[in-house]
Amino acid sequence: MRMKELARRSGIPVPTIKYYLRESLLASGTATAPNQASYDEHHLRRLRLIRALIDVGGLSITDTRDVLRAADDADEFHPDLLGATHSALGTARRPPVSEDRRAAAAKEVDEFVTRRGWQIHPGNPALDRLADVIATLRTLDLDRVCETLDAYADAATELAEHEVRLLARLADPDEQGDGQPRPDAMEAVVAGSILGKALLYALHALAREAVATRTFDQSSS
Amino acid sequence: MRMKELARRSGIPVPTIKYYLRESLLASGTATAPNQASYDEHHLRRLRLIRALIDVGGLSITDTRDVLRAADDADEFHPDLLGATHSALGTARRPPVSEDRRAAAAKEVDEFVTRRGWQIHPGNPALDRLADVIATLRTLDLDRVCETLDAYADAATELAEHEVRLLARLADPDEQGDGQPRPDAMEAVVAGSILGKALLYALHALAREAVATRTFDQSSS
Repeated sequence: MRMKELARRSGIPVPTIKYYLRESLLASGTATAPNQASYDEHHLRRLRLIRALIDVGGLSITDTRDVLRAADDADEFHPDLLGATHSALGTARRPPVSEDRRAAAAKEVDEFVTRRGWQIHPGNPALDRLADVIATLRTLDLDRVCETLDAYADAATELAEHEVRLLARLADPDEQGDGQPRPDAMEAVVAGSILGKALLYALHALAREAVATRTFDQSSS
Repeated sequence: MRMKELARRSGIPVPTIKYYLRESLLASGTATAPNQASYDEHHLRRLRLIRALIDVGGLSITDTRDVLRAADDADEFHPDLLGATHSALGTARRPPVSEDRRAAAAKEVDEFVTRRGWQIHPGNPALDRLADVIATLRTLDLDRVCETLDAYADAATELAEHEVRLLARLADPDEQGDGQPRPDAMEAVVAGSILGKALLYALHALAREAVATRTFDQSSS
């Protein structure tokens, strides 16, 4: 199909598609004439994925490119593929906490990870993020929140176990019904990973309101 | 203390503090002379809170103002106070999905919320966010992820129950040890709510890597 048809079917304007081509998020079409190219269903699927990662997953253009590259380079599901989808966490700003407090928090994170028996790559930006959050909580005299780290980690682990099973199934040809791997299996893993995060965040916000309302109604009746 | 001292102790530059004053995030100091004001420990605490919400919580200036206003207006813990902290969710972009698919997803969210027995205010932006995520998952042929909504909701509910108990304790004078309410109890609730979210997100990223690595190591050995 021509660029115009690709824009119509994806709902994405032509200049935006051209931008994704320049930024190497989308592969070039097949040249059919000078200044003319033809695009296929793969381009359409890829465009939908790009917009899902940016609009719903909240990824930047750079993070989107990194994540898609990881998906293109992988031929099976592995932890590093999931690791690439953590990049969106790395953009938070450093809070103004003292050096001492930041160092103590980093040590606390280190001990916590060891105690939980978690194998974490030192480059995972969530390690720094967690230390920032802990240092900030202590600066605000919210040590009590830090004391309940395990409750958060338990819920996060339960969820992660569910997600990893789900993502492994998305990558498994035996699970596709016809025994054929879906052509976009690794794209599906990446999309499932990023959108699973968005799903959790939205459900968490809803669950908090539901639980708070229920608790409040009970205590005031 | 003078503005310069406030900047030194908070680690926040003077121009930034002046910006927060203009944007009404921070209350004016007590005038001591024309063009001179004095600030106290409350200002320092508030500045730290503002930076925590922006740097660690990822809130915009506008969202920070809304959340702080809700804390200042509340004299006890209630669900609406928590609701104000959901505002940061509302800024995601709408994905390019068809009108039909979006309407079907909104209906699905509605039924899901009813089935779970959740009482949710119609203005909670997470309802729209959830519908966007579901519509996007279906557009990407990731229906399988949607089928596991309950697993995400179970983990989110368990966590929310923990958090609401924790936040209610932060607001409860009997829990402060000396029987006195802490002067910033509602600020603590808001900070605990926003930073609790940041805590979950970081721990979720770590748990995913830990679980994926464990699963992968087991299956390849």
